[in-house]
Amino acid sequence: MRTTAAVAVEPGKPLEIMEVNLELPKAGEVLVEIKATGICHTDEFTRSGANKGGNFPVILGHEGAGVVVAVGENVSTLKPGDHVIPLYAPECRQCHACTTGKTNMCTAIRRNQDKGLLPDGTTRFSMLDGTPIHHYMGCSTFANHTVVAEISLAKIRKDAPFDKICYVGCGVTTGVGAVINTAGVEVGSTTAVFGLGGIGLNVIQGLRMAGADMIIGVDLNNDKREIAEKFGMTHFVNPAELDGQSVSEAIIEMSKTEEDDWGGVDYTFESTGNVHVMEEALKAAHRGWGESIVIGVPPSGQKLAAEPIQLLTGRVWKGTSFGGVRGRTEVPKYVDWYMDGKIEIDSMITHIMPLEDINKAFDLMHAGESIRSVVTFE
Amino acid sequence: MRTTAAVAVEPGKPLEIMEVNLELPKAGEVLVEIKATGICHTDEFTRSGANKGGNFPVILGHEGAGVVVAVGENVSTLKPGDHVIPLYAPECRQCHACTTGKTNMCTAIRRNQDKGLLPDGTTRFSMLDGTPIHHYMGCSTFANHTVVAEISLAKIRKDAPFDKICYVGCGVTTGVGAVINTAGVEVGSTTAVFGLGGIGLNVIQGLRMAGADMIIGVDLNNDKREIAEKFGMTHFVNPAELDGQSVSEAIIEMSKTEEDDWGGVDYTFESTGNVHVMEEALKAAHRGWGESIVIGVPPSGQKLAAEPIQLLTGRVWKGTSFGGVRGRTEVPKYVDWYMDGKIEIDSMITHIMPLEDINKAFDLMHAGESIRSVVTFE
Ligand SMILES: [Zn+2]
Ligand SMILES: [Zn+2]
Ligand SMILES: [Zn+2]
Ligand SMILES: [Zn+2]
Repeated sequence: MRTTAAVAVEPGKPLEIMEVNLELPKAGEVLVEIKATGICHTDEFTRSGANKGGNFPVILGHEGAGVVVAVGENVSTLKPGDHVIPLYAPECRQCHACTTGKTNMCTAIRRNQDKGLLPDGTTRFSMLDGTPIHHYMGCSTFANHTVVAEISLAKIRKDAPFDKICYVGCGVTTGVGAVINTAGVEVGSTTAVFGLGGIGLNVIQGLRMAGADMIIGVDLNNDKREIAEKFGMTHFVNPAELDGQSVSEAIIEMSKTEEDDWGGVDYTFESTGNVHVMEEALKAAHRGWGESIVIGVPPSGQKLAAEPIQLLTGRVWKGTSFGGVRGRTEVPKYVDWYMDGKIEIDSMITHIMPLEDINKAFDLMHAGESIRSVVTFE
Repeated sequence: MRTTAAVAVEPGKPLEIMEVNLELPKAGEVLVEIKATGICHTDEFTRSGANKGGNFPVILGHEGAGVVVAVGENVSTLKPGDHVIPLYAPECRQCHACTTGKTNMCTAIRRNQDKGLLPDGTTRFSMLDGTPIHHYMGCSTFANHTVVAEISLAKIRKDAPFDKICYVGCGVTTGVGAVINTAGVEVGSTTAVFGLGGIGLNVIQGLRMAGADMIIGVDLNNDKREIAEKFGMTHFVNPAELDGQSVSEAIIEMSKTEEDDWGGVDYTFESTGNVHVMEEALKAAHRGWGESIVIGVPPSGQKLAAEPIQLLTGRVWKGTSFGGVRGRTEVPKYVDWYMDGKIEIDSMITHIMPLEDINKAFDLMHAGESIRSVVTFE
């Protein structure tokens, strides 16, 4: 069959809207009609060429929602008409990683997924001249139709609006899950969030859900303050206005109490992808037990650096991928939380556009004018 | 009063054995007759001048055992004749850190302890010409008598031999505690220990106590293999004999199984103090859930460095100080474990000598000829 897609033909170039060939799903695969897709920094990381592991040409997009059109052989958990969210973090429920119950990092199809291929090591997309087009993170949601592995699809309720819950496919779940699953924040915790973009706002709403007492937001842009407060931020720090003090020092001062003259917060979250900020986030965690969770992905080749004493004096450094959420099992619950009003999404979807305008979404991202842009189909 | 001590007069010089003045204990302080003290890399770290935070002149030593001789005012938990182990990690049971129950990093006297002073900000030691001598880590066990804060003393049973259980004051507890408290290793875990010195051996015996299935030891010296196996090591890697493979790659290969084709171990422990080894230890931890615990203390100014992807793909980086052990509460249990034969110490005490020979203990350490040297008094 043919479908319309935004293709990243080579690194650093705008996406090109074109008709492409799409083969029908093979065994264990599912054909999905994408109804809406968010545009994420991770897509831009690959599009721009900053991700040295990128495969081109490729159909990007990993934050979508849609409807099952057809299923391949041996697909038992989905049928045409089911509403689904594609998962860049699959959940096979069979591999060693899945069965440990200790992680969401299923290894079943990881190696081929990283190569831009479906589990069998091939692609379903090609250009009209026959040139194969890579898949992206097992999803490729910048296409009106895509083929995805069955284990990479979460089945969700049918009354949820695609143009909102597509965001559950990445940012919402990453931010909220980092709080609930990776950090395991307890009621009454003190916390700090570095970077008040889409991920940071979702971390903040996760912290509010988890009952954190103190939620310090950190951003260079004072304009972020208002919306962050709406999501639950209780204190704000602009590193540019600190007058010589480092951010970690400022947070340590702010978090001192009569009982605790040492300062530092129980949990810090880093969502800027800047390795220097990651070190500050570690330092701002409380001596003895504070945990710092890395969410942002730095450019290839950059290394974390920290004084060993930060760890030796009891801080914990962690990372998270998709918020530690097991997609098929937990994503439906995130959609329920949105429908129940426990999770706010609408105000973060700042722009909606057709596929033809997708390059504008990247421009808005660079200009800092969007929280999330969403492309809807038809 | 006067007592005999080994004084570090200035950085980089051998210790000088001399008579020194010792004031009687003030409120909340205890006069202890030291019966035995181990000589630890941390003492050498300060003696050599590598620790930029060192205070001189100073009476080093933090791994001792002895008997209470006299107590100052307001001391309620100890009396003359009690057997004690001085604690460089005090436990006040009153400060915010202690009352959280989340850490052993009591802050009650930390700032003055780091300055080489007792809690009231003064010293009890001085040279015969009146020059004040600093305390060290709140202990100063390289002296026949010392004054220690009440909250820095663990009361232990009277039938335990001083020349063995002094080692509980640092190395034993650090290694075993890192396994039990900091990592919380579960029965059946796969593990690796980097560096088979005194700390590494104690990590290994902690892993055996905790029921680990696989205990991989890593050391450049093949001679360490025999004793490490005696303590519970199940596999050995010499990084110099790997033929191009990195240690982390070797461990990942060794730990692959039919069920787990990804490899990596559940817990890694770094006890060399080498920041490059710390990065290898992090990489050797299993993707998705592996934890790496930093125990060794690198030279001042050196930084940890790691690819962020190591954390983002689910590894956890932690550090430990005194094995996360709350000294007054838990050290008596470690002594019981030794007396019950659950913890092995005797074979690690390779040299016993009088105070006059203490500089030989540092020579043996540098030559790699000792696991632990112990100085006994009288
Ligand atoms: Zn994303
Ligand atoms: Zn799996
Ligand atoms: Zn020590
Ligand atoms: Zn305390």
